[in-house]
Amino acid sequence: MNPYYYLECKFRSMDAFMQLNLHQTHHEIADFEGIFKYLTSTFQDGSHSGLHIFPELFLTGYPLQDLPLKKTFIDDYLAFLEDLSIWSERQLKSKSPLALLFGGLRYEFDGLGWPAQIENVMYILEPGKKLRPLYTKQLLPNYDLYEEKKYFTPGNQSVVFEFQGKNFGLLICEDMWFSHLHDVDPVELLSEQNKKCDMVINISASPYHLGKIETRINRALEISQFLEAPFVYVNRVGAEDEIIFDGHSFVVDGNSVVKMAYGFKSQILSLEMPVYQEPEKGNVRSYHSSTNSWSTIFSTRLSSDTLSLTPMGPKGCQEVLDALLLGIGDYITKNGMKKFTIALSGGMDSALVLTIIKLLQKTMPIELEAVFMPGFYSSSVSFDLSYDLCRNLGVKLTTMPIKFIHSTIKTAYRDNFGAELKGLADENIQSRLRGALIYMRSNDLNSVVLNTSNKSELSVGYSTIYGDSVGALSVLGDLFKSEVFELAHFINANYGGLIPEDIITRPPSAELRENQEDSQSLPPYDRLDPILEALLSSRFSPADLIKRGHDKDEVLKVYSLLSKSEYKRKQFCPIIKVKPKSFGFGHRVPISKKIL
Amino acid sequence: MNPYYYLECKFRSMDAFMQLNLHQTHHEIADFEGIFKYLTSTFQDGSHSGLHIFPELFLTGYPLQDLPLKKTFIDDYLAFLEDLSIWSERQLKSKSPLALLFGGLRYEFDGLGWPAQIENVMYILEPGKKLRPLYTKQLLPNYDLYEEKKYFTPGNQSVVFEFQGKNFGLLICEDMWFSHLHDVDPVELLSEQNKKCDMVINISASPYHLGKIETRINRALEISQFLEAPFVYVNRVGAEDEIIFDGHSFVVDGNSVVKMAYGFKSQILSLEMPVYQEPEKGNVRSYHSSTNSWSTIFSTRLSSDTLSLTPMGPKGCQEVLDALLLGIGDYITKNGMKKFTIALSGGMDSALVLTIIKLLQKTMPIELEAVFMPGFYSSSVSFDLSYDLCRNLGVKLTTMPIKFIHSTIKTAYRDNFGAELKGLADENIQSRLRGALIYMRSNDLNSVVLNTSNKSELSVGYSTIYGDSVGALSVLGDLFKSEVFELAHFINANYGGLIPEDIITRPPSAELRENQEDSQSLPPYDRLDPILEALLSSRFSPADLIKRGHDKDEVLKVYSLLSKSEYKRKQFCPIIKVKPKSFGFGHRVPISKKIL
Repeated sequence: MNPYYYLECKFRSMDAFMQLNLHQTHHEIADFEGIFKYLTSTFQDGSHSGLHIFPELFLTGYPLQDLPLKKTFIDDYLAFLEDLSIWSERQLKSKSPLALLFGGLRYEFDGLGWPAQIENVMYILEPGKKLRPLYTKQLLPNYDLYEEKKYFTPGNQSVVFEFQGKNFGLLICEDMWFSHLHDVDPVELLSEQNKKCDMVINISASPYHLGKIETRINRALEISQFLEAPFVYVNRVGAEDEIIFDGHSFVVDGNSVVKMAYGFKSQILSLEMPVYQEPEKGNVRSYHSSTNSWSTIFSTRLSSDTLSLTPMGPKGCQEVLDALLLGIGDYITKNGMKKFTIALSGGMDSALVLTIIKLLQKTMPIELEAVFMPGFYSSSVSFDLSYDLCRNLGVKLTTMPIKFIHSTIKTAYRDNFGAELKGLADENIQSRLRGALIYMRSNDLNSVVLNTSNKSELSVGYSTIYGDSVGALSVLGDLFKSEVFELAHFINANYGGLIPEDIITRPPSAELRENQEDSQSLPPYDRLDPILEALLSSRFSPADLIKRGHDKDEVLKVYSLLSKSEYKRKQFCPIIKVKPKSFGFGHRVPISKKIL
Repeated sequence: MNPYYYLECKFRSMDAFMQLNLHQTHHEIADFEGIFKYLTSTFQDGSHSGLHIFPELFLTGYPLQDLPLKKTFIDDYLAFLEDLSIWSERQLKSKSPLALLFGGLRYEFDGLGWPAQIENVMYILEPGKKLRPLYTKQLLPNYDLYEEKKYFTPGNQSVVFEFQGKNFGLLICEDMWFSHLHDVDPVELLSEQNKKCDMVINISASPYHLGKIETRINRALEISQFLEAPFVYVNRVGAEDEIIFDGHSFVVDGNSVVKMAYGFKSQILSLEMPVYQEPEKGNVRSYHSSTNSWSTIFSTRLSSDTLSLTPMGPKGCQEVLDALLLGIGDYITKNGMKKFTIALSGGMDSALVLTIIKLLQKTMPIELEAVFMPGFYSSSVSFDLSYDLCRNLGVKLTTMPIKFIHSTIKTAYRDNFGAELKGLADENIQSRLRGALIYMRSNDLNSVVLNTSNKSELSVGYSTIYGDSVGALSVLGDLFKSEVFELAHFINANYGGLIPEDIITRPPSAELRENQEDSQSLPPYDRLDPILEALLSSRFSPADLIKRGHDKDEVLKVYSLLSKSEYKRKQFCPIIKVKPKSFGFGHRVPISKKIL
């Protein structure tokens, strides 16, 4: 259920309807052939009219990272643009006025043929005309996971584009997010143009995180009121490794959301939009109230006293679940896989990952196998709960004990190194043996191993590198342990009690030594997670947290573990991002450094 | 031997000598306490005079990545600056004029106390005065591994600073490398200042790669001639994870190098520098001949027909060896380790890594153990050669056979999954078992496992993730296999034939199945490596290479392997960088994408 969908639809005095089509569609990065086929087949029959708007960098995909600098990419992309231009000039037909607006790259080359300048632009295609760039993105985001200044040159002028006698102010993604990080405000510049905007169009490739949808709408309403024009927002949908583009394209007008597309799936949203002769003065908000700054970019999900984490709530849980399903689904589709092998421990994290894949199976034809690998310290409860879970889910469970292999290794260690294998070395070998064995199985089946680590573990390095930290993609790596529990409760409440309650309530343990429990090494998760959220936001120092009433020893220990475990995260797989501040692409911290 | 050292020392009509001290020294990132102690103890006795010049961001370390945005870093750094300022104002003494110039960060905060602006500046400390910023870096590098625009705000004016009646033009690192990537040229701006420069000072944190030293000097000579003033270059030294700062600080004057510091180690270079009354007109070179562009930044090490790799040569081999030694040494020192466990296969890569660590042992007190882990397909020659190598090096060799453990796993697989373990799954489990076992040993010893992969393997994904690709730090990951051989020959020729010749000459094999050889899966390295170098430079497409006479099937196969193996490199350890274009921090390519 989409709470914004048709929230309110307002009509005022109007002189015309504009046919708008918001193409919230997805193609793989650099799939020039696929995009060409999609466009030519969609528009071939000549029946379309009006404005068709596609997301930012629709022609190439996003984020491209180094690809725009590569000769192969450039050659293929330019050939594709040329084909598109020829098609538009010679073959694209329509009875009524038609224009396609989409994001793409515009290159300028130096005398030697190397790219001298690359712009992130909005192109227009009209029947009988060549492809031409309309507008260059002015604000290039260059913080956290964004690094557009590395590749692109910003534009330096605002553009109001005329179509069917109406004026459309153009923006690309970050252009609507003026902040101290930027020199100019493209929204202000639009208001200063000679032509008054009848409508504002923003094409975006805006990554999802919890709370982002509300933030976008609030800002769009502000701009709509400020410019006294409806605001059309077309966002990318689909997952790129760790980044989820959630769609949720929309049209707002003054105080209300006129229409909104689904989240986390493709949709072409068509609507007849009134274009006003006489703009109505809205209830103008303070214009710059929700701009970006370091403090808002990495906003924390903390109570005001920092002592507890803000729950995701049912709406947040559903969003996060949808994001994870899209992230996993797109990853395997794009990488040509359709099977999963999941190592079950009898604990919460692996149970939740298996349950999520099972939910994915409702929407895609995938195969699924669970493997339980008991060792010397695995309790029988762990097997029973894994068995119950798999029975609930209808998933095949195979047991592959590691006890004998572990014994063999212990003997070999004594024989060859003349020492007993004990302590951490003996704990880690069990975890690494499981890592090797689950990959052995996945090699044989040609399946994907999904990682089952959570953000609390990852933060403090409470995992074994090449052991329980293996996997192609991390499903829960952006959720703290307490959020893992919240999501499990949510799924049980809304998808029919799939996860045995005992899995959720038993004390977390790695089961690598006798009677081991997480709480022997770490503070309880309801104290650990708020400390981590505060530190990872970069906005609090350990001293700040101690001042606010957190336990001093716990804060200092957590800070030190966080700092010292960077080397493990450097070798970790991509993590599906669902938070403002995540490990992964936007997290860059040296391994070697003083612990401050 | 440093070929630039005292290359030529030229004296012209002069009116004064300026005492210059180039502090090519190293401190760990964010070691504020260490830096404060170093400065106060060095200058406490009041005997110093003249100009003391330290590298870019000396006060914080470089590269800092996200650290400057973290509250803990900011709080501690500001307290340190305050201490430094108080010390300088109240305690720093000298009989003759004295000034310390060093790089640091300058913060401005918004109303809420978050950083609104961070500048990469040159600070000055003078006895009896507070610390003050002199100059803000104007050109912020933001390509490849550089991302300064993500954190810093550029300065917008050139500064000529006066000391003892002489004028010093100030530059910070990239400021000397104007290119199409930047809008202004700080060197030109210096020439347009009211005050003619008597000397130009550039403080740098310039990462090493093959060929970089020559490039820097050529550019410095150009600028010195253009501005008709000596050019003083103070570079950082020391390793930060994958990045090597090589030092090689220097002073050039017109056509000649006056003095140069050592490479790859700390040194305080002191000299009496003549400061001219009447500048002599040099043989002015074309000024912009060696600026940066996409084509020069990622210059290839290829013959002009692209069919072969340019050999490193003895000088290049020595540089690379020095860089690797510094990289390994600093990594373990900073991370508090002093032991190494190396898995020997009997092949070239692991033999070279072990030999390099042995060379490191000449300069640092480290412990070293080699482990040979023979499996079903390991030849007896592999053991013999490993034995010979360890005898030559005087390293303890332990054998830990994996045959029985491997058998145990095969049986368990049959018993539990009802299938024979064979093919790739059976090859990979051997590699992963070795990965797990070498880490078991290192857990027990608290030692570092160094990775032994080479750049050719890494490029085409010819390695097992969590198997032979494990390790804390990659020593050879920026050297193609043919360069690994060249370096091995170099070490044998110059360090007393440490590596048995048969290790260098035997056909490379992973020994994971009967009679396996690399050449069954890959083109011969003398054909593979040039293709990889060309593709990784981003300046050639497969079509370009086929046109130039490379075998079509080989090029397309290599291109596809390179594209498809990105997921393995995402989970790889830091690689010591010795080339213009390396995997690691400056290499950013999506996993999910169309193979172009």
